[in-house]
Amino acid sequence: MPAKGDHDARRRDVSEAVWRVVATAGFTGLTMRAVAAELGASTGLVTHYFPSKALLVRHALDLAAERTDERPLRTPEAPGLAALRAAVLDVAPVDGDAVAMNRVWVSSWDLALADAGFGAAQAARYTRWRAKLARHVADAQERGEIGAGDPADLAARVAAFTHGLVTQALFDPEAFGAARQERLVDGFLDSLRAGAPARDS
Amino acid sequence: MPAKGDHDARRRDVSEAVWRVVATAGFTGLTMRAVAAELGASTGLVTHYFPSKALLVRHALDLAAERTDERPLRTPEAPGLAALRAAVLDVAPVDGDAVAMNRVWVSSWDLALADAGFGAAQAARYTRWRAKLARHVADAQERGEIGAGDPADLAARVAAFTHGLVTQALFDPEAFGAARQERLVDGFLDSLRAGAPARDS
Repeated sequence: MPAKGDHDARRRDVSEAVWRVVATAGFTGLTMRAVAAELGASTGLVTHYFPSKALLVRHALDLAAERTDERPLRTPEAPGLAALRAAVLDVAPVDGDAVAMNRVWVSSWDLALADAGFGAAQAARYTRWRAKLARHVADAQERGEIGAGDPADLAARVAAFTHGLVTQALFDPEAFGAARQERLVDGFLDSLRAGAPARDS
Repeated sequence: MPAKGDHDARRRDVSEAVWRVVATAGFTGLTMRAVAAELGASTGLVTHYFPSKALLVRHALDLAAERTDERPLRTPEAPGLAALRAAVLDVAPVDGDAVAMNRVWVSSWDLALADAGFGAAQAARYTRWRAKLARHVADAQERGEIGAGDPADLAARVAAFTHGLVTQALFDPEAFGAARQERLVDGFLDSLRAGAPARDS
């Protein structure tokens, strides 16, 4: 019988394999066999940890949430617009880890839109994200960095832009390299300045 | 043996059922059995038209492309910003048909990101869409309706905003009703006016 530590280490290996499979083959490609192949192990080992396809899928969704919540975030130099910029770039697929994270989330939307429970969890997640963005928007308005407007609507605009940038960059990584993504983010954020209180010039 | 006309009519019924299944249960939920249940027929009838799951999926993807390309579009009052607005609202999920269309597309992203051939087709589709948006942007710049900037980058910004609005509205239809979506679209388009050539006031 393996020691507890071995068991936990093995479970982490299986988790890693699940993550890599979903990040490349999506939820459609997430099968016991694919995880076993990624791991170089038998499907029996995978079913030992995840006895059903539903549990395997559930684990992949949990991994997406955990990895997203625990990833290192940018430290903005200031609150307001700089913090908003950091929050957008924390989501944009500008490096390999962020690409994998986004691929898993975008792939999960098929499931989430069809399952009331998971769809509600996803909607709640996005509501929290928009609330966070709205706080940065309100800070930026207070600092005179962006124009007037309902912070919730402006946050929805930022969230929309960010999610859509993710989609385009995932489908066309050559046309949307990291440098262009940053340029697009900065162009978009500049457009929020429209109507900002005039400063003495 | 049924007449050719009967066969075609039956095939259209099966197609309709495929569409309704994907629009509610996603590609994950697209099975012979679900289509048969939606149709109130046997799975044998479905497999008569679509002998394999792969052909069923392919048909659903073809339907999405056809229905999207053949849907009625808004007729803008003018080229430029008005045409850009119409193009964005032609995509936004502001009514039942547009919700179904978007659900099918968003659900298809799981497959598309995992399959090189279909992913390339999807990427090409979005490239054409951005090119169309870029023409409206250039027209709007010529008409002095929006500010300077690379039309391709501005079109990417519009496409990003639109796709992200789709995602948020699909997950949270209560928070993103048609009226709010229109308000968000107009707020976003207003922000493009920033830096537009000053008019005599």
